[in-house]
Amino acid sequence: MADPNPQKSYADGMFGNSNKVYLQGSRPDIQVPMREIKLGPSRFPNGSEIPNDPVRVYDTSGKWGDPEFHGDSSLGLPTLRSNWIEERNDTEVIEGRKVSHVDNGYLSELHAQKAQKRFQALNLDKRVIRRAKPGKQITQMAYARQGIITPEMEFVAIRENMKLQTLKGNLQCSNGVNSNDLRKQHLGNSFGASIPKEITAEFVRDEIARGRAIIPSNINHPELEPMIIGRNFLVKINTNIGNSALASSIEEEVEKMRWSILWGGDTLMDLSTGKNIHLTREWILRNCPVPVGTVPLYQALEKVNGEPEKLTWELFRDTLIEQAEQGVDYFTIHAAVLLDYVPMTANRMTGIVSRGGSIMAKWCITHNKENFLYTHWDEICEIMAAYDIAFSIGDGLRPGSIADANDEAQFAELKLQGELTRRAWEYNVQVMNEGPGHVPMHMIEDNMKKQLEWCHEAPFYTLGPLTTDIAPGYDHITSGIGAAMIGWYGTAMLCYVTPKEHLGLPEKEDVREGVVTYKLAAHAADLAKGHPAAQYRDNALSKARYEFRWEDQFNLSLDPEKARRFHDKTLPQDTSKVAHFCSMCGPKFCSMKITDDIRAYVEKQKQ
Amino acid sequence: MADPNPQKSYADGMFGNSNKVYLQGSRPDIQVPMREIKLGPSRFPNGSEIPNDPVRVYDTSGKWGDPEFHGDSSLGLPTLRSNWIEERNDTEVIEGRKVSHVDNGYLSELHAQKAQKRFQALNLDKRVIRRAKPGKQITQMAYARQGIITPEMEFVAIRENMKLQTLKGNLQCSNGVNSNDLRKQHLGNSFGASIPKEITAEFVRDEIARGRAIIPSNINHPELEPMIIGRNFLVKINTNIGNSALASSIEEEVEKMRWSILWGGDTLMDLSTGKNIHLTREWILRNCPVPVGTVPLYQALEKVNGEPEKLTWELFRDTLIEQAEQGVDYFTIHAAVLLDYVPMTANRMTGIVSRGGSIMAKWCITHNKENFLYTHWDEICEIMAAYDIAFSIGDGLRPGSIADANDEAQFAELKLQGELTRRAWEYNVQVMNEGPGHVPMHMIEDNMKKQLEWCHEAPFYTLGPLTTDIAPGYDHITSGIGAAMIGWYGTAMLCYVTPKEHLGLPEKEDVREGVVTYKLAAHAADLAKGHPAAQYRDNALSKARYEFRWEDQFNLSLDPEKARRFHDKTLPQDTSKVAHFCSMCGPKFCSMKITDDIRAYVEKQKQ
Repeated sequence: MADPNPQKSYADGMFGNSNKVYLQGSRPDIQVPMREIKLGPSRFPNGSEIPNDPVRVYDTSGKWGDPEFHGDSSLGLPTLRSNWIEERNDTEVIEGRKVSHVDNGYLSELHAQKAQKRFQALNLDKRVIRRAKPGKQITQMAYARQGIITPEMEFVAIRENMKLQTLKGNLQCSNGVNSNDLRKQHLGNSFGASIPKEITAEFVRDEIARGRAIIPSNINHPELEPMIIGRNFLVKINTNIGNSALASSIEEEVEKMRWSILWGGDTLMDLSTGKNIHLTREWILRNCPVPVGTVPLYQALEKVNGEPEKLTWELFRDTLIEQAEQGVDYFTIHAAVLLDYVPMTANRMTGIVSRGGSIMAKWCITHNKENFLYTHWDEICEIMAAYDIAFSIGDGLRPGSIADANDEAQFAELKLQGELTRRAWEYNVQVMNEGPGHVPMHMIEDNMKKQLEWCHEAPFYTLGPLTTDIAPGYDHITSGIGAAMIGWYGTAMLCYVTPKEHLGLPEKEDVREGVVTYKLAAHAADLAKGHPAAQYRDNALSKARYEFRWEDQFNLSLDPEKARRFHDKTLPQDTSKVAHFCSMCGPKFCSMKITDDIRAYVEKQKQ
Repeated sequence: MADPNPQKSYADGMFGNSNKVYLQGSRPDIQVPMREIKLGPSRFPNGSEIPNDPVRVYDTSGKWGDPEFHGDSSLGLPTLRSNWIEERNDTEVIEGRKVSHVDNGYLSELHAQKAQKRFQALNLDKRVIRRAKPGKQITQMAYARQGIITPEMEFVAIRENMKLQTLKGNLQCSNGVNSNDLRKQHLGNSFGASIPKEITAEFVRDEIARGRAIIPSNINHPELEPMIIGRNFLVKINTNIGNSALASSIEEEVEKMRWSILWGGDTLMDLSTGKNIHLTREWILRNCPVPVGTVPLYQALEKVNGEPEKLTWELFRDTLIEQAEQGVDYFTIHAAVLLDYVPMTANRMTGIVSRGGSIMAKWCITHNKENFLYTHWDEICEIMAAYDIAFSIGDGLRPGSIADANDEAQFAELKLQGELTRRAWEYNVQVMNEGPGHVPMHMIEDNMKKQLEWCHEAPFYTLGPLTTDIAPGYDHITSGIGAAMIGWYGTAMLCYVTPKEHLGLPEKEDVREGVVTYKLAAHAADLAKGHPAAQYRDNALSKARYEFRWEDQFNLSLDPEKARRFHDKTLPQDTSKVAHFCSMCGPKFCSMKITDDIRAYVEKQKQ
């Protein structure tokens, strides 16, 4: 993690000719961020030029990606949602649970203080902890069901619609062909989903009320820029970070977070284990503009020294509240790993590969008792509802190999996820369901169909799936294939996979590779399912390519720095970036030049 | 291209614990190459061990990948097919066309000799040039239709069946679970194709006779190790090389060829332009164990100084014969770009992006005449038949952007490709059809369906397709997604794309990244369509992963060197490669260990 100033990345040439712009909603404090890419003019053979309007794209980088912002991570991000939460007047400031040395994995306060001396302190005097007032329903789902459009809902509606902010201008081609032809948008096939031509706040509200979409937004994470997860919206991607027993520090984790959102991570899971879990999470939450998810079981396990059989409901409950008060936006809870399901995995090729799944399986078989997450589901729902934390119901029995795909254990759990979803909705808790894993292509659609049916259309959130097991080192690609497909079929969010999957811990360039791979997979899915805000970017880039506007082609791409670097390796001269040829054919011959001749021929034929 | 000795790559640690083995067919000169990967034993908690049988995998690297072979590229490869061709007694040795300075792009013999002094000379005193005897039908299709099983057919049948050579041994799990459970093979869904449980030589013959598969095998390329392209066989991948006007030398091209087949390229297209095309091709053919394809139009264009309008049928015909005598195994011919179709591209976002397509379009509109490749189709078929060169009927009007996918121009050409296919079959010429390009996911299947219907099930050979245009620098992945899908739907061969696509010329590491990405996409397709020789490798790797046999996991992967390097970056100690934990969880906790406990629990419950 060498770059000390990721917030300067726009200026550093990662994204050329780009500005951060904010679109205002119905009130001045709804400011929706986008990256605006300025384009060069189309140049015609006769020497004339036509300017091209800038293109706006979805931007997850938060204030860190705004060159005007000069923040300091020890102070955290501005709390843009504070007013919205306060003015609803349905939550109260509480003292909160006292943070203990145990939360960070130390034997005593003294140990903790001594060990944590090496870290810079967070300087957040204004931070308060909130909880729902007794009897108040404060989740986005609760508001939606009452017909209330929150600022969060309006924010995401504007955010999903960036196309409408873009296409007013010309997408005319260099020969003056009618621009409408060139804006041609393919109709997608969204497998029964129904994406409107314009995403309105009312549509957002309706989708949330039906449970088909969620806005993960803990009231204790006011730094959040709201985003929506649902199959009638843009497909989102999650990135994972986390210090592990073997590596990493807090600074590195914060830096990884900023790096992953710079490239386009829509949500972030902090999967830290080992020491300083609580402190690491505090730093991340105070600096993270995207929803943060965790697997609370990981921290609970640390508190019992890594021995699953020592876990108790009380300890787990305390951990949930600890993290709820910090502001975690969604929790992965492995409540559907039932004692009866565990033996179904015994004859698998690769057993249970989910960490949470195996922890709960171990607990169940050691005590010969039902999973305490299942037996305490209602109490968990009550906690989630009090902070508006969303469920990400875990798939602890997901297959860990092609051989184990779509087996009895996996589907038994999925069906139960549906029951738990229904029960959570009774508490107005927002829900998504986690899915596989490792699935060959022809078995992917069945996963999606069953999830939609059994889980009542709650958003699906899958890891890949990997479509083959024979390419470690390339599992961002084996899984990117499955991710694009299942995204098309209706999965709302894709958990990214880096090239280091199965082999080691991802470094900075691995994170970038994983994020960009998943962004392109999600975008391919958006195209296929016909999201109205998808294809304009392909069209803008294709037009730039056709017109040899190399700089525009780079800047419109998901990774401008890499595109430019690859180009310059073959043709380093600056002049070549405006030249009418590329390295594949050289200056003498060019397919695209011939297309110009064809257009002239057609015109002549008409005369 | 830094590695001077790619033939030593096995020894250099690219593929650990691997040997080249040869499976003998019905006669001693049928020796089918495979890579045999030796595995370590499964280690049980009680200290006992069970050995694991070696796994054999498809191997395209030829003699260059055999550590026992100490060849020299100036001498070429052994001509293993010479006897098969001679003993059929239906071809004759001819003097052949005289190679001219024009073939290499020089103004005179003197210029050519002077310029080519810098190159090492090929030393091939025994090379002869063959052609069919008058009236003889010498193509694999002709033999197949007569009911003859050639050595080439038997060779590919053995080659496709490596699984049968592998699974006699145990794929037992470390707890002694019945190995049959663990060999579980998912049934694929092959969209109406019918892959038998065992690929026999008779099945190969039948598929070739029907035109559903081809063995590209010019009688003047006896160095070839035969391979088959058809949807009832393993999905193949093609790689492209080629010096361009801007870069590269002959040595580099030969080296790129050896590098691409080392990683798994099944065929190779030489797309050279500029000087020394003929000489470069000669070096490649004499050293290449996989089928070589070209676009003869590229060389023809060089001969008219890059001006398409100056092309003539006579010049083109002469170029065909030049390349036929050298041994090119398949020709891309853009005969379906009709004059009437050209105007259909005028309103496209990106016009005509195929180089061959735009050359012929330019010729047609300049002369206002029908494409001479179309008007001379029968003569072309006669030439192809005399050497057993396969057609790769070009898709000169393929879409160059998402916006242009599946349009009128593309489908008009595809339909005509079908007519040309039927006509080529009348000459017993083997045929495949080229396809797109840039296609969003939901429009891919339609391409395949139309190709199967209109082109009478001749093998489809697609470039990607790219499923989005917004990720230059990652187009091996945007296209790998489309490639895996269309491979599953029935495409027989996938033309690889490297990360440099649209940006620059691929270097050595780009070629490796592109080949491995396409191998994994092809393999994902093989799994999905249910090829019987696909899943055993996933299972073997998954079992190795489950049992923490790190070395086996690396060696069973498509890129062992990278997998090992990634692992060692996090856990460099050698001991960790046999340790029962990985970097994600650390030594204290392991999901896979818990699965062992579950199996013990199940056993106990049974008692």
